[in-house]
Amino acid sequence: MLNERMLDLGKRSSVIREIFEYGNKRRAEIGAENVFDFSLGNPSVPCPPAFNETLKQFLDTVPAESLHGYTSGPGDLAVRKAVAADISAKFGVDAPFDLVYMTCGAAASLCITLNALAEEGDEVIAFAPFFPEYRVFTETTPAKLVVVPCKSSDLQLDFDALEKAITPHTKALILNSPNNPSGVIVPEADVVRLAALLNEKQAAYGTDIFLIADEPYRPLVYTGEPVPYLPRYYDNTVVCYSFSKALSLPGERIGYIFVSPACKAARDVFAAVCGAGRALGYVCAPSLMQYAVARHLDDTADIHIYEKNRTMLYNGLCEIGYSVIKPDGAFYMFVRSPEPDAGAFCEKAKQYDLLLVPSDSFGMPGFVRIAYCVKPEMIERALPAFEKLFREYR
Amino acid sequence: MLNERMLDLGKRSSVIREIFEYGNKRRAEIGAENVFDFSLGNPSVPCPPAFNETLKQFLDTVPAESLHGYTSGPGDLAVRKAVAADISAKFGVDAPFDLVYMTCGAAASLCITLNALAEEGDEVIAFAPFFPEYRVFTETTPAKLVVVPCKSSDLQLDFDALEKAITPHTKALILNSPNNPSGVIVPEADVVRLAALLNEKQAAYGTDIFLIADEPYRPLVYTGEPVPYLPRYYDNTVVCYSFSKALSLPGERIGYIFVSPACKAARDVFAAVCGAGRALGYVCAPSLMQYAVARHLDDTADIHIYEKNRTMLYNGLCEIGYSVIKPDGAFYMFVRSPEPDAGAFCEKAKQYDLLLVPSDSFGMPGFVRIAYCVKPEMIERALPAFEKLFREYR
Repeated sequence: MLNERMLDLGKRSSVIREIFEYGNKRRAEIGAENVFDFSLGNPSVPCPPAFNETLKQFLDTVPAESLHGYTSGPGDLAVRKAVAADISAKFGVDAPFDLVYMTCGAAASLCITLNALAEEGDEVIAFAPFFPEYRVFTETTPAKLVVVPCKSSDLQLDFDALEKAITPHTKALILNSPNNPSGVIVPEADVVRLAALLNEKQAAYGTDIFLIADEPYRPLVYTGEPVPYLPRYYDNTVVCYSFSKALSLPGERIGYIFVSPACKAARDVFAAVCGAGRALGYVCAPSLMQYAVARHLDDTADIHIYEKNRTMLYNGLCEIGYSVIKPDGAFYMFVRSPEPDAGAFCEKAKQYDLLLVPSDSFGMPGFVRIAYCVKPEMIERALPAFEKLFREYR
Repeated sequence: MLNERMLDLGKRSSVIREIFEYGNKRRAEIGAENVFDFSLGNPSVPCPPAFNETLKQFLDTVPAESLHGYTSGPGDLAVRKAVAADISAKFGVDAPFDLVYMTCGAAASLCITLNALAEEGDEVIAFAPFFPEYRVFTETTPAKLVVVPCKSSDLQLDFDALEKAITPHTKALILNSPNNPSGVIVPEADVVRLAALLNEKQAAYGTDIFLIADEPYRPLVYTGEPVPYLPRYYDNTVVCYSFSKALSLPGERIGYIFVSPACKAARDVFAAVCGAGRALGYVCAPSLMQYAVARHLDDTADIHIYEKNRTMLYNGLCEIGYSVIKPDGAFYMFVRSPEPDAGAFCEKAKQYDLLLVPSDSFGMPGFVRIAYCVKPEMIERALPAFEKLFREYR
């Protein structure tokens, strides 16, 4: 009587959400300050104050029927031009405004792009660990998801595994750097190698393979090194961006898709993006937020807090004895579970009111994800609990 | 190399958009005041001033990280409770908050609902004339669209045609009242008859048939009579609402889905809605707008202007000699084309800089749609042009 897949997706609540609900229960029982909830990637840092000032200025000065009116389907023209100019200035690539499509956030960007590209029989490659909704989004298209695990030593790309996974059916790869859930950034040398491999496979198979750059965490980097901008390295690239994490606006659902003009038949790729936007009901991203982000393309929320958290948490956990993959970006840390079953480890952690996410849901067992986009005080107070937990394994 | 359907959808720009682009060209050539553009359903009336004040108040008083933070997937709890209480108070139906799902506007509401319900082999019935994207949204699911034309005399439901169209494969009907593009409202007697027919067919086939109430125009009514609220008449009803037209916020993409608790397995229907929201990338509707609409559930933009336009245009066109379906709601008027080919009539109208939409794109030939959500002055100045145009047919 209902669509079985949708019913199943709706009933199967995500692991992260279950932990979050458990956290709500515990907060009510013992007080919020005693629950060390590292489960959610909800930024703890406010948006730049100037952003809210911009919103108020628009509300005061722009006629309401135009401020809240429909923009054109792919977004407001001036906004698209501003985004394109920003891409061009920041990354030194050609960025025509009419290859920019404003979207309702990162999930929308990915869903639209995947639906624009995927046909029956296609394969889309994701690198584990990966954001679990990649599977949901991909399986909504006619394509199937192929998972290529990263090297468990450093969670970097495993080129041997990747080479074997690319087939004549490979339509796209999703690369998420800085990565959720690991915080790992793919270094330039690996991007170059990836581009060479994809070019080689395209030539060998006579196919087109698209690289989908999912990069909501691009500005959240702590190494001082820029994250390689994929359109500079590989022609068939589509960038999916969201302002959620950079400007701390996750609830506002605003982002964009940029089809690199170097893509084969780039205008057709963009037309397919427009078509998928229509088919999924996504034309015209939220107008007020479109106008506002266009004024804050160079701003970010105060990410120093995340940087401070990262240092404190990484050093603290290493001192205790945990084995941690040092994150270079985003606000997630991947820690090896001291026992093989990360789920069992997370259950033990709950006894210390430490709420962690087992890595199985990210397609790679044996780790836990710690979302450190929290108040620094929480990390300070959580470290003794992490220590007690670790003692159980000595 | 690309998804052919999406490419086709992206390339085939809508008739309405083409007319709008032509209008832009003419406005540049002869001045905006000389182009009588009745093509777009973009409200000309601003949102209630108090709505913008609410936005500013939230920006001034709510911590930014929470105001712009993720709400839970189906929407903020307090917002869902406010919407449910409003439904219950206005329409006298049971409305549990946990059957309310906040969405990113009307298109999102419909796409999510259709994807939640439709399975391979299903049929979804739309009554012509209908909003053209119904076909696009339906054909993105495994179902196919079945069109049942309304009676051409008054554009009301044709029960003979409908009875023949309902089969054991019918999963849902989309009812849009007040209607875009005709402005027609389905009267209570017809709603009662429709409910009886659907109950009879459900019993005969042993199936469940859902009524999808697409009602963004609900508050825009000029008869003084309330529009029948479908959950009061038929159990298997899902309401798709948007605040776009009621509050003049079309660009902000905010609305909701309400699964009537009388639906068979209502909790499962809601779970499938949640699943479809995930699958299409729609969880968590824009947060600031969620909070704001919850404060303005009883407000509308000043719809008296539309009422004034309706009277002036209807009387004016009738005096000239046009045959007009009198609209009871929304801000559209359906006028019979004086020649059989409405497209040819619209081309002639262009010579007088009257921009009208031929009804073929709404699934019913022989009419034009006039969107009268314009400044009243435009109607005044357009009537002489309508008269000159009509003379060509005498």
